[in-house]
Amino acid sequence: MALRSAVTRLLSSSQKCAAVTVSRAQGTAAATVKAKVAFNWRDALDLEGQLTEEEIMIRDSFRDYCQEKLMPRILMANRHEHFHREIVSEMGELGVLGPTIKGYGCAGTSYVAYGLIAREVERVDSGYRSVMSVQSSLVMHPINAYGTEAQKEKYLPRLARGEILGCFGLTEPNHGSDPSSMETRAKYNPSSGTFSISGAKTWITNSPVADIAVVWARCEDGRVRGFILERGMKGFATPKIEGKFSLRASATGMILMDEVEVPEENLLPNVSGLGGPFGCLNNARYGIAWGALGAAEFCFHAARQYTLDRIQFGVPLARNQLMQKKMADMLTEITIGLQSCLALGRLIDEKKAAPEMISMLKRNSCGKALDIARQARDMLGGNGIADEYHIIRHVMNLEAVNTYEGTHDIHALILGRAITGLQSFTVEK
Amino acid sequence: MALRSAVTRLLSSSQKCAAVTVSRAQGTAAATVKAKVAFNWRDALDLEGQLTEEEIMIRDSFRDYCQEKLMPRILMANRHEHFHREIVSEMGELGVLGPTIKGYGCAGTSYVAYGLIAREVERVDSGYRSVMSVQSSLVMHPINAYGTEAQKEKYLPRLARGEILGCFGLTEPNHGSDPSSMETRAKYNPSSGTFSISGAKTWITNSPVADIAVVWARCEDGRVRGFILERGMKGFATPKIEGKFSLRASATGMILMDEVEVPEENLLPNVSGLGGPFGCLNNARYGIAWGALGAAEFCFHAARQYTLDRIQFGVPLARNQLMQKKMADMLTEITIGLQSCLALGRLIDEKKAAPEMISMLKRNSCGKALDIARQARDMLGGNGIADEYHIIRHVMNLEAVNTYEGTHDIHALILGRAITGLQSFTVEK
Amino acid sequence: MALRSAVTRLLSSSQKCAAVTVSRAQGTAAATVKAKVAFNWRDALDLEGQLTEEEIMIRDSFRDYCQEKLMPRILMANRHEHFHREIVSEMGELGVLGPTIKGYGCAGTSYVAYGLIAREVERVDSGYRSVMSVQSSLVMHPINAYGTEAQKEKYLPRLARGEILGCFGLTEPNHGSDPSSMETRAKYNPSSGTFSISGAKTWITNSPVADIAVVWARCEDGRVRGFILERGMKGFATPKIEGKFSLRASATGMILMDEVEVPEENLLPNVSGLGGPFGCLNNARYGIAWGALGAAEFCFHAARQYTLDRIQFGVPLARNQLMQKKMADMLTEITIGLQSCLALGRLIDEKKAAPEMISMLKRNSCGKALDIARQARDMLGGNGIADEYHIIRHVMNLEAVNTYEGTHDIHALILGRAITGLQSFTVEK
Amino acid sequence: MALRSAVTRLLSSSQKCAAVTVSRAQGTAAATVKAKVAFNWRDALDLEGQLTEEEIMIRDSFRDYCQEKLMPRILMANRHEHFHREIVSEMGELGVLGPTIKGYGCAGTSYVAYGLIAREVERVDSGYRSVMSVQSSLVMHPINAYGTEAQKEKYLPRLARGEILGCFGLTEPNHGSDPSSMETRAKYNPSSGTFSISGAKTWITNSPVADIAVVWARCEDGRVRGFILERGMKGFATPKIEGKFSLRASATGMILMDEVEVPEENLLPNVSGLGGPFGCLNNARYGIAWGALGAAEFCFHAARQYTLDRIQFGVPLARNQLMQKKMADMLTEITIGLQSCLALGRLIDEKKAAPEMISMLKRNSCGKALDIARQARDMLGGNGIADEYHIIRHVMNLEAVNTYEGTHDIHALILGRAITGLQSFTVEK
Repeated sequence: MALRSAVTRLLSSSQKCAAVTVSRAQGTAAATVKAKVAFNWRDALDLEGQLTEEEIMIRDSFRDYCQEKLMPRILMANRHEHFHREIVSEMGELGVLGPTIKGYGCAGTSYVAYGLIAREVERVDSGYRSVMSVQSSLVMHPINAYGTEAQKEKYLPRLARGEILGCFGLTEPNHGSDPSSMETRAKYNPSSGTFSISGAKTWITNSPVADIAVVWARCEDGRVRGFILERGMKGFATPKIEGKFSLRASATGMILMDEVEVPEENLLPNVSGLGGPFGCLNNARYGIAWGALGAAEFCFHAARQYTLDRIQFGVPLARNQLMQKKMADMLTEITIGLQSCLALGRLIDEKKAAPEMISMLKRNSCGKALDIARQARDMLGGNGIADEYHIIRHVMNLEAVNTYEGTHDIHALILGRAITGLQSFTVEK
Repeated sequence: MALRSAVTRLLSSSQKCAAVTVSRAQGTAAATVKAKVAFNWRDALDLEGQLTEEEIMIRDSFRDYCQEKLMPRILMANRHEHFHREIVSEMGELGVLGPTIKGYGCAGTSYVAYGLIAREVERVDSGYRSVMSVQSSLVMHPINAYGTEAQKEKYLPRLARGEILGCFGLTEPNHGSDPSSMETRAKYNPSSGTFSISGAKTWITNSPVADIAVVWARCEDGRVRGFILERGMKGFATPKIEGKFSLRASATGMILMDEVEVPEENLLPNVSGLGGPFGCLNNARYGIAWGALGAAEFCFHAARQYTLDRIQFGVPLARNQLMQKKMADMLTEITIGLQSCLALGRLIDEKKAAPEMISMLKRNSCGKALDIARQARDMLGGNGIADEYHIIRHVMNLEAVNTYEGTHDIHALILGRAITGLQSFTVEK
Repeated sequence: MALRSAVTRLLSSSQKCAAVTVSRAQGTAAATVKAKVAFNWRDALDLEGQLTEEEIMIRDSFRDYCQEKLMPRILMANRHEHFHREIVSEMGELGVLGPTIKGYGCAGTSYVAYGLIAREVERVDSGYRSVMSVQSSLVMHPINAYGTEAQKEKYLPRLARGEILGCFGLTEPNHGSDPSSMETRAKYNPSSGTFSISGAKTWITNSPVADIAVVWARCEDGRVRGFILERGMKGFATPKIEGKFSLRASATGMILMDEVEVPEENLLPNVSGLGGPFGCLNNARYGIAWGALGAAEFCFHAARQYTLDRIQFGVPLARNQLMQKKMADMLTEITIGLQSCLALGRLIDEKKAAPEMISMLKRNSCGKALDIARQARDMLGGNGIADEYHIIRHVMNLEAVNTYEGTHDIHALILGRAITGLQSFTVEK
Repeated sequence: MALRSAVTRLLSSSQKCAAVTVSRAQGTAAATVKAKVAFNWRDALDLEGQLTEEEIMIRDSFRDYCQEKLMPRILMANRHEHFHREIVSEMGELGVLGPTIKGYGCAGTSYVAYGLIAREVERVDSGYRSVMSVQSSLVMHPINAYGTEAQKEKYLPRLARGEILGCFGLTEPNHGSDPSSMETRAKYNPSSGTFSISGAKTWITNSPVADIAVVWARCEDGRVRGFILERGMKGFATPKIEGKFSLRASATGMILMDEVEVPEENLLPNVSGLGGPFGCLNNARYGIAWGALGAAEFCFHAARQYTLDRIQFGVPLARNQLMQKKMADMLTEITIGLQSCLALGRLIDEKKAAPEMISMLKRNSCGKALDIARQARDMLGGNGIADEYHIIRHVMNLEAVNTYEGTHDIHALILGRAITGLQSFTVEK
C-alpha cells in the first residue's frame, strides 16, 4: 500500500511522524472556521459587511466631520459649558438633521443610516448627539408625523438646514417617569383662535437656545396635545439650568409658559393622547441605542490605546489579565449591542418594529455603555479624571443618557409588562 | 381659512379641543414605530424573520422531537445519572448528527441550522446537547476535516446514523486550559505499522459508552496529532467519573491508554499541531454558543410561567418589580445573544468567521445563560431546588458548559490577546 | 554641627547617601502600621482576638468534631441523599443543640458561641447546619420561649441530647414568602380538650425523620398559634420530597395533617400571631448568617489550595491575576461579613438587637456566600463539578440557604420598609 | 386541672382560642430578639455603642463644623474649582490635623477618632478630606515617624495649626501603580551640604497651594528617601492640573523640580526604601477607608430623602421595590464596611494591624462607596446630574478616591499575594 510504504520509508529515515502528513496531500483541510480570517477588534462580527454601500458612505463622511470638526471643539466646550450653536448649521449642511424624513429638504435615509449617524456623533460627545436627537426625533419627527402640510413646509426645511433649532417640552418638574400626570394646560380661546398655554417644563435639551419648542399640554378635554411654540411669544421663557455635570456641551434649561398665546395653526392636529410624545420618544430612543454604543466604543478604544502605551512594572498595562478581561467584556457588549441595533433598524425600515424592542435596546445600550465608560475610566488610573483623556466626560454624559427618555428601571418595567401582561409601575392591581 | 373656521365652529359647540383632531384627516400619522406591531417576548427582535424556510423547518421538526421525546425522559435520567444510548440513534434518524457535513449520509445544512438544532436540544438538557456536540463537532468534524477518504467512508455514515458513538480525548488530568503541555504520547513502530499510544484523558463526554475515540497525542516529532481509537483495542479503558453534579444525563469518564496499538490507518493525516483539536473545539463552541441560550430560554420561560401562576400577597409573583426586572434582563441578554449567534452562523457559512468570534460568543452565551439560570432558580424560591421544575438542573449543567471547551476566563484572555496583541496567559513576556 | 559633619565624612568616602541614615539612630521609626504584624488570610481582621476564651474553646472542640466526624461522611451522604440520624445524637452529646438556652440540659452559651458553632458545622455542609438550626432555633427555641414549664421539662432535655429530633411547620405549598395567608387550621374541641389540626406544610427540614413537629396553624379567632405534634398521632404524615438538588444530606419533606387531634397541653400558650414563628425565624436566621460564611470559608480555602497545587502554563493557577482578584473579593466579603456577625451576636447577648439587623446579615451572608461558592467552583474548572472537591455541593446547598427563612429579595423589602417606613411587599398603598 | 378548666370555660363562651393565651400569664415570652428594639437605619448595627465617649464628642463637634461651615461652601467651590485655603486653618483650630500624633501641638486621639473625623469631612466632600488626609497622613505623619526632633519642632506645630499646608510627592507621570521605577533623583553635594533634586511628580493634592512638600527621590545608593521641600526654593514649581472632573474643591497639580537645592537638614533620616512612602500611604488609606463610607452615607441618606419626597404614579418613589432594593444594598454595605473600619482602627490602636488589612478595607470602602454613589445618582433621575443635589459630585470624587493610593485592582493583587504567597503584579515568576 502506497500510504503505508510511504509512512514506513519516511519514518525509518527521520523517526519523526511529522513527515506522515506531508505525504498525504489527498486530504483537504476542510476546517470550517478559518484561522486565516483576521479578527478585527474594531468590528468583531463584521457589522460593516451587513451595511449597504450608501449607509457606509453616509457614515464615513459624517465620521470625518465628527472627528475633524467636533472632536477638536469638545474639550473646551464641555469644560466651560459652552454650546456651539454653529454646529447645528454644520450638521444641517451635511444633511443629518431629520435624515429619515422624505422630502422637505431632508435626506430620506434608512433608519440604519440614522443609527450610524447617531453612533458617530456620540463617539465624540453625547451632548452633541442630544442636540441632534432633539432636532431630528423630537422636533422634526412630530411635525412630520403629526403636523399639517403647512407646518411641515414652514418648519421642516429650516430645521433640516439647522437654520432654526428646536426643543421638546414634555418632562415637568414634578413628573419625570410619569408624564400622564402632566400639569401644563392649554385652553382654547374661540375669540382669538389661540390656545393659552401655562406650565413649566424642565430638563429640556436645547431650550435656552432654541428657536421653537414642541410642547405637550393637556387640553380642556383632558387629552394631551402638541403645540409649536416660538421664541418671542409673550410669556415664554427658557432659563438655563446651572451646575450640570453631564452633557455640558449642550444647553439644558426649562420652558416656563405663563399664558403663552399660541395660534391654533400651531397645534399638531394629527395626534392626541400620550401616544404623540411617546412616538417621538421611541424615535429618539432608537437613536440613543446606537449613540450610546458609539460613546462606549470611544472609551474602549481609548482605554485600549492608553494601556498599550503605558508601561508599568516593565510591561504595557494592557499585558495584565485584569485589563484584558475588562476589554474582553467591553468588546463583547459593544459587538452584540450593535448587532441588535442593526437588526432593530432593519425592522423599523420594514415597519415591523414594536416600541418594546426600542425600550429593550435603549436600556441595554445605555446601561452597558455606562458600565464600559466607568471601566475604561478606571483603566486610566489617575489620568482618568482629567478631561483631556475624554473618558470621564463620557462617564458623566452617560449618566444622563441612561436616565433620560426612560430610565433603566422604567424600561425594565415596560419590558416586564410586555413579558407578563402585568403592570408594576403603580400600586394599582 | 377653512381650517380655522372649522376649528372655531367645532369648538364653539363642544368647547373641547378633542374635536380639533377629528376634522383633520388630511394629515397622515407617519409614526415610524407602529404600536400595532405586537411585541413577542418569545422572539423579541424577530429572529424568526431572519431564518430561511429550510432552517425553520429543520428547527421545528427537531423541536417537536426534543419536547415530545427528550423532555419526558430527562427528569429521571438526570436524577439517576442514566444515559439513554438510544437517543443517539434517534438523533441519527432525524439527521442532526454532523448536520453540516456534505455527503457521507450527512444532511449538509447551514451552520445556522446547526445552531438552531443545538439550541433546541439544550433547551431540554445540556447533557444531551453535549452528547450531540461531541459526536458532530469533535468526532465527525475532525474525521471529515482531517481524515482520509477511507476514514470518512468507514466512520461518517455510521456516526451520522448514531449507530456508533464517539468521544474526543484532549483534556488531561493535569492540563485543562493548557493543552500544549499534553503528556499523552504516540510512538510509531515501523515494523507493525502502528502507533503505540499511552496517556490519560479526563472529563471526556461519552467516553464510558463510546465506540470510538478521537484522541490527540504528542508524536515523536513533538507535534500533536489525532488518532481514531476503537473500543476493544488492548490497553484502552474508559472508567466513568462518579459523583458528577452537572450534565448527569450524559456519561463522562476518562480514557486510559496503556500502550494501545493503533494502526497507522487510524491517524488523521491532514493536520498536525494544536490547530487540529482547536479547529474541533471552535466547531463545538459555536454549537455551545447557541445551545446555552436555549437552556437560558427554557429557564426564562419557566420562571415567567411560575411567577404568573404563583400568588403571593394577593397578586402573581410576576406582578412584582423585582421579578419583572430579572425577566427584563433575561429577555434582553437572550435576545441580543441570539442575534449575534445568527450573525456568526452566517459568517461561518460565508467562510468569513475568525476563531475569536466564536470565543466571544461561546463566552458570552455561557456566562449569560448561567446567570439567567441562577436568577430563574431564585425566582422559584424553595421549589427552585426540586428537579421537577428543571431549572436547578440547568443551573448545574451550565456550570460545566461555562467551563468546558475554554473557561470564561480563558476566552477572556483569548479575546484580550486579539484586542491588544499581547498574550497574558503565561508569565513570559 | 555633629550631624552635618557626620554626613559629610561618611559621604565623602562612599558617595552614597545610604550611609546618611546609618548615623541617625536617634530617630525612632514610629510607623503606625507595623509591617511586622503578619497578615493572616484565614482571619484577616483578627476575629479571634475578639472572642472570649470560652467561645474559642467551644468552637475548637466542635470544629474538631466537624472535621473529624462529619467531613468524612458528607460525600456519600450528599451523593446518595442519606441522612445520618446518629449525627443528631452526637451533636447532643457535644452540647451544641439549643446551646443558648439556660437550663433543661442546655449549655447556656453566648449567642456568639452559637454563631461559631453554626459556622463550623456549615463549613462542612449546610444540610447538617440546617438539621441543627431547626432543632435549636425552630424547635427548642419556641418551646423555651413560648412553652409551658411542663412542655419545657418534657421536651427540652431530650431535644438537647439529640434523643428526639424536631421539625418546624410554617411554610405551606401556596405560601412561601407570605405566611400571613396560612391555610392550616386548628379548631378547638371543648369536649375532648384537643385541637383538631388540618393542613399541609412543605419544604420542612427534618420532617421525614422527626419525632416531633412545632406546627403553626390559624385558630378560630383568626390568630396563628404554635402546637407541638408528635409522630404517631393519627392523621399526621411526613412524605419525603424527592429529587432535591440542595441540602441532600438532610431530609426534607412535607407535613400533612388530616384532622390530627392535638391535646391542648401541646399548644404553645405564650405567643399568638405571626410574631411567634417570626421570632423563631429570627433566631434561626442569626445562625444562618454565621453558617453561610462558614461554607464560604471552606470554598475560599479549597479554591486557594487547588489553585496553588494546580500548575498551568508553567505556574500555579493561583499566580494568575484573575484568580487572585477572585480570592481578594472572597477574603474581603468573608472578613467583613464575619465582623458584622460578631457585632450582631454581641448585641443579641446584650438584648439590643432588632430583627431587621438579622434580616440584613442573613441576606448579606447568604448572598455573598453563594457568590463566593460559585466563584470558587469556577476556579476549579472541570474538577469543580465533581462532588469529591466539595465546592459544587456548597453551591447547590447555598441556593436553598439563600432562599429559605426569607429570600434575598424578601429581606431586601424588609430592610426597605425599615429604611423608608413604606411597605412594598403588596400592591396596597 | 386549673389550666384545662380555664381553657374549657373560656372557649365555651367565646369559641375563640385567642382567649387561651390571656389566661396563661405564667409563661414568660423569652423571645431573644426583641421586636421592641427599634431599628436605626442610620446606624444599623449600633456602631455608636462601640465608641468611647471621647470619640463621640470629637466626632460630634467636628460633624457640626462640617455641616455648618463646609457644606454651605462646597457647591460653588466644586462648581468653580475653587480651593478655600482658610478651611485648613479652621481645621487646625479644631485640632483635626495630624490628630493621632502625640505632642507638637497635636491632639493625640485614637485611630478610631481619626477615622470618624475622616468620615465626617468626606460626608461633605472627598476633596476636603483629601486636603486633610494629605496634611495629616502624608505630611505630618512622615515628619513625625521619620523626621528629626528639629524637623518635628519646626514643622509639626505649624502644620497642626493649619498655618502651613503640605503636599506629598510620590507618583510620577510615568509611574502610578509602580513607584519602584521612580525617576526623581537626589544627588548629594558634600561641599554645600545639600541634596540636588530633579524630577517631576504629578497628581499631587494640594501642590499648587502648599507651603512645603514631602518629596520622595532616589538617592545615589539606589534607595528612595524623603525630603522636605519648601515653596520658594529655586527650581521648585507646582503647576495646577486643569480640567479635573473629580475632587474639584481641592487643588491638584504637579511638582516640578529642576535641580532644587535642599539642605541636608531637610532629609527625613529615619527611613529608606519604599517602606517610607508606603508607611505614609497605609496611614492615609486607613483614613480613606472611613472617609469613603462617609460619602456613601451622604448619598444613601440623600437618595432616601429624595425618593420619599418625590411622588410618581401617586406614591413616593421610595415605595417602589426597585428603589427599596437599592437602599437595602446601600445600608448593608455601609454598615458592614463601617464595622470593619472600627475593628481595624482598634487593631491599629493596639499595634496589631498589618498593611494588608488596610489594603482590604481601603479597597472595599472605595469600591462599595463608588457603587453606592452611582446607584444613588440613578435614583435621582434627571435631577441626579445637577450639582445642587450633591450626589453627582460624590460620584465624580469617588472615581479618584477609588483610584488614588492604590487602585482597586492593585489592592486586589496586594491581597492576592498575601493570600497565595505569589506575586502577580509583574511578568516575572
